[in-house]
Amino acid sequence: MSTRNLGRLLPILDWFPAYSRPAFASDAMAGLIVAIMLVPQGMAYALLAGLPPEVGLYASIVPLVFYGLLGSSRALAVGPVAIVSLMVASTLGEIAETGSAGYLAGAVLLAFLSGAILLGMGLARLGFLVNFLSHPVISGFSSAAALVIGFSQLKHLIGFDIPRSHLITEIIAHAAIHIDHINLATFMIALASFAILLSFRSLISPVLRSIGIGAATSDAIAKAGPLVAVLVTTIVVWQFALDQHSSVRIVADIPAGLPPLTIPNFDLALIEKLLPAAVLIALVGFLESVSVAKSLASKRRQKIDANQELIALGAANIGASVTGGYPVTGGFSRSLVNFTAGAVTPMASIITAGLIGLTVVLLTPLLYFLPKATLAAIIIIAVANLIDLKTLRHAWVYNKADAASLIVTFLAVLTLGIEMGIVFGAALSIALYLWRTSRPHMAEVGRVGQTEHFRNVLRHEVQTDPRVLMVRVDESLYFANTAFLEGQLLTRVADRPEIDHLVLIMSAVNFIDASAIETLETLAERLHDAGVTLHFAEVKGPVMDRLERIEFEKALGEGEVFLSSHEAMRELSKTSVSEAA
Amino acid sequence: MSTRNLGRLLPILDWFPAYSRPAFASDAMAGLIVAIMLVPQGMAYALLAGLPPEVGLYASIVPLVFYGLLGSSRALAVGPVAIVSLMVASTLGEIAETGSAGYLAGAVLLAFLSGAILLGMGLARLGFLVNFLSHPVISGFSSAAALVIGFSQLKHLIGFDIPRSHLITEIIAHAAIHIDHINLATFMIALASFAILLSFRSLISPVLRSIGIGAATSDAIAKAGPLVAVLVTTIVVWQFALDQHSSVRIVADIPAGLPPLTIPNFDLALIEKLLPAAVLIALVGFLESVSVAKSLASKRRQKIDANQELIALGAANIGASVTGGYPVTGGFSRSLVNFTAGAVTPMASIITAGLIGLTVVLLTPLLYFLPKATLAAIIIIAVANLIDLKTLRHAWVYNKADAASLIVTFLAVLTLGIEMGIVFGAALSIALYLWRTSRPHMAEVGRVGQTEHFRNVLRHEVQTDPRVLMVRVDESLYFANTAFLEGQLLTRVADRPEIDHLVLIMSAVNFIDASAIETLETLAERLHDAGVTLHFAEVKGPVMDRLERIEFEKALGEGEVFLSSHEAMRELSKTSVSEAA
Repeated sequence: MSTRNLGRLLPILDWFPAYSRPAFASDAMAGLIVAIMLVPQGMAYALLAGLPPEVGLYASIVPLVFYGLLGSSRALAVGPVAIVSLMVASTLGEIAETGSAGYLAGAVLLAFLSGAILLGMGLARLGFLVNFLSHPVISGFSSAAALVIGFSQLKHLIGFDIPRSHLITEIIAHAAIHIDHINLATFMIALASFAILLSFRSLISPVLRSIGIGAATSDAIAKAGPLVAVLVTTIVVWQFALDQHSSVRIVADIPAGLPPLTIPNFDLALIEKLLPAAVLIALVGFLESVSVAKSLASKRRQKIDANQELIALGAANIGASVTGGYPVTGGFSRSLVNFTAGAVTPMASIITAGLIGLTVVLLTPLLYFLPKATLAAIIIIAVANLIDLKTLRHAWVYNKADAASLIVTFLAVLTLGIEMGIVFGAALSIALYLWRTSRPHMAEVGRVGQTEHFRNVLRHEVQTDPRVLMVRVDESLYFANTAFLEGQLLTRVADRPEIDHLVLIMSAVNFIDASAIETLETLAERLHDAGVTLHFAEVKGPVMDRLERIEFEKALGEGEVFLSSHEAMRELSKTSVSEAA
Repeated sequence: MSTRNLGRLLPILDWFPAYSRPAFASDAMAGLIVAIMLVPQGMAYALLAGLPPEVGLYASIVPLVFYGLLGSSRALAVGPVAIVSLMVASTLGEIAETGSAGYLAGAVLLAFLSGAILLGMGLARLGFLVNFLSHPVISGFSSAAALVIGFSQLKHLIGFDIPRSHLITEIIAHAAIHIDHINLATFMIALASFAILLSFRSLISPVLRSIGIGAATSDAIAKAGPLVAVLVTTIVVWQFALDQHSSVRIVADIPAGLPPLTIPNFDLALIEKLLPAAVLIALVGFLESVSVAKSLASKRRQKIDANQELIALGAANIGASVTGGYPVTGGFSRSLVNFTAGAVTPMASIITAGLIGLTVVLLTPLLYFLPKATLAAIIIIAVANLIDLKTLRHAWVYNKADAASLIVTFLAVLTLGIEMGIVFGAALSIALYLWRTSRPHMAEVGRVGQTEHFRNVLRHEVQTDPRVLMVRVDESLYFANTAFLEGQLLTRVADRPEIDHLVLIMSAVNFIDASAIETLETLAERLHDAGVTLHFAEVKGPVMDRLERIEFEKALGEGEVFLSSHEAMRELSKTSVSEAA
């Protein structure tokens, strides 16, 4: 195997040999900043997934190392992310009680299954499959998922339990009815966390810059918002013993030490139950990851290999499943932080993993008094970015069908749940595409002045011959649109008895499938019976090659295939005139 | 409501006012011939559906009248058909024992549900949906269904039970292992029936003509094959008491009298179970019916209104459900007989219905000794026509993807069963279409000689400018192919550093969806960063209109939209040269 091929399979071979001290310094800084961000985020997302907080930390160690060795992106930061965590929660909520051993085992198995699916797809080179989710569907899905995630955290902000539901209205109704159960201390901690997070996000960096601190340092400090919120609220709870006096819920004991080795439970019945969700988790995770990896790579003219990404994310998830973790993927905001903080190679991720490893070994006692309300606030601020109105506005102006698929996906996620919602959205965007191509645009054309150009008679002033109907079909011909085409053409011919010739201009026809061929043959016959000859013009090379294979001209009878519309008009006008004479 | 609109809803108003004696004579002859054909066929198909023979006769009375009043086809002969009967058997086989009251009630409910679905689709004008089944899928489905139907009758030919299975191999294996159980008398009757049916089909008509009998009369007599087979074998069984001495299975008691009034059992759980099958039965039935109606109508320049057909078939099925019948549709061979026998209006069907009504009232005792083996032979000869190798040969030569979808549908029906098979086939043909459009053909083009024509550089000898890359994209741009397009274009540009301008020729691009717009905007940015300007040429009117709505030219920056490839080449070559100078 050549070095180049080996480098594609193990991208670390591409960068490690030339690895330098400055690169390491840059990677180390980025790795540290991401680790500071990831400790609270990892715990928060685990909470969102219904898992103990340490699971989020375990999922932030080995998976990062595996991705670092195999991934084709230099700046992707892998780990727990919000949408995948929500999908895990909604899947496992149906098979086990939150907090039970079965729930935890389910998470490990989900990580293994989605890892295996990603790996399999990568080896089968199925990376293209993700293209079948359109941008509007992804946008509608993300916005709705952000709302579902946000409202799932409401119980942590107000400090009393709300039955799990994917219906936001039910959550709000329950919260509103029992609002007298609110835990005020918890609610105040949540408000304080929001204040800290929001001020770090939009105020700190400009203030620091205005007092003369460098832009890079200011931005780096601004990323520490979650850490500061965690520190401040943890200290407050500890100092005032709010967990005991005011029943503020805290993270409490996190087992110290490295992640345990876990073996997924290969129970066939359980696998069968989890498999559909694992497929969706794998696809959605891959989609999020590859979008962010692509956008970061293009900023530095690097390339992302979608199939290699599948393999790397597959390995990362299998890594998560054997070290007590749960499904992971490349996260959007964290990768952006990694990139802007200066990560130049996957070494940054490996450093992050090392620091998280140190945290679980040494620092977990410090997190004992961390209130869950703070983690909930961190989640809500993180997912607020996912709510995307710009794509909707854009699609609304450009193409209502795209806007409709966005809105329908959004509503489907909110009403049918997150898995059914995305399946529904994907099916809808494919259906809309098929619907559009099943009713192709057809234009009757005529000659522009004395030129050889032929244009739509409705848009341009053109010359036509009443005995020659020239129609341009603006779509490839395939099974779903041939009946429509046939009906339209027969109606036009039936409406104008003076027509002797029908010329189909095929400049926009890129393909004709077997069903369409059959229809064209029948059409030629029916037109012939009605005294009209069917001709073709401007047939493309690849299309003509296929037509010749089946001796299509025989089916045309007296009909011809003209090179250009001009030639067709010249020849047929002549004949018509002489016939009429 | 105008008379014309009323005539569309009740097509009988179109033809009845002008109905004449000669038309009646012609219709009466056709009605008689179809009735002679329908009595044995109706019983045989009921047998195939696992129902008592009289159910097939009941389904041949009221449904025909309802279709006659509402249908837009003048020659369609509605009634039990083979494929629908098989689908009924495979659906009901899972919910009840053959011959039980539940089985019969299920058949009535299936007729009602598919009737309601057809009616609903007609009112919602969803007739176009049927276009999404491609010809190769239909061909593969029909051929496989014919085999499944044929082998399901094997037990009647050899006279011993074979456990129901949709796997032909299992049926053959069971028959082979227990071949010593064969009932020789039954088998001889089957062979005799085949001999009679085949000789009527291909020998009788030429022989009659050669002795001077008119062509029309000869052909009409040839259609009586099934009736003759029924008469001969019934008399033989009766004369030699083969039902008692040799255990030949016979139709036995058929209740005399008009069809009973039945009320479908609206049990919600049962409806939920039968609904998916009812949808498929409705779609497949509609497909068969509308194809034959269309092909007959075009022979006489009449028109079929797909949505009116849905309404008429819906009413026919609901009619079947309240008169002890089971799902019906327009049958292929029977309609062809009706048409060639001279049916000019739906009065022919109404006459057929009247004759079948007389049969159930008066003639059922004559059918007591009719052997089931004869009915099985009638089914097998009828479905043999469905096996279609021509479409496969044609598709194989023309387009391997179409041939593949035919073969896969064929195999899916044989292995997964008839319902899953057709769903699988339909999904596959859509997937193949999406796959093809997701990897569009792109051609680098150059100028042909000194003309204004631009053609593929690989197919023609053309002039190009190394600094200007002109690429024609042969597909509409939508979510599934934008990533491919972007990757291809970036690779081409990366491979040739001398390129300053990239011109996308959009003559074959009929639509750009919102996802593709986003990709084009990103592409323009990335190319700009790489020192390449993105231009467009030959953008179609409707596409340009949409681009203008979102001020797309802003995203293009210095890029332009040229009217023609020629203009683009002229302008850009100039710039490049002057820049280079």
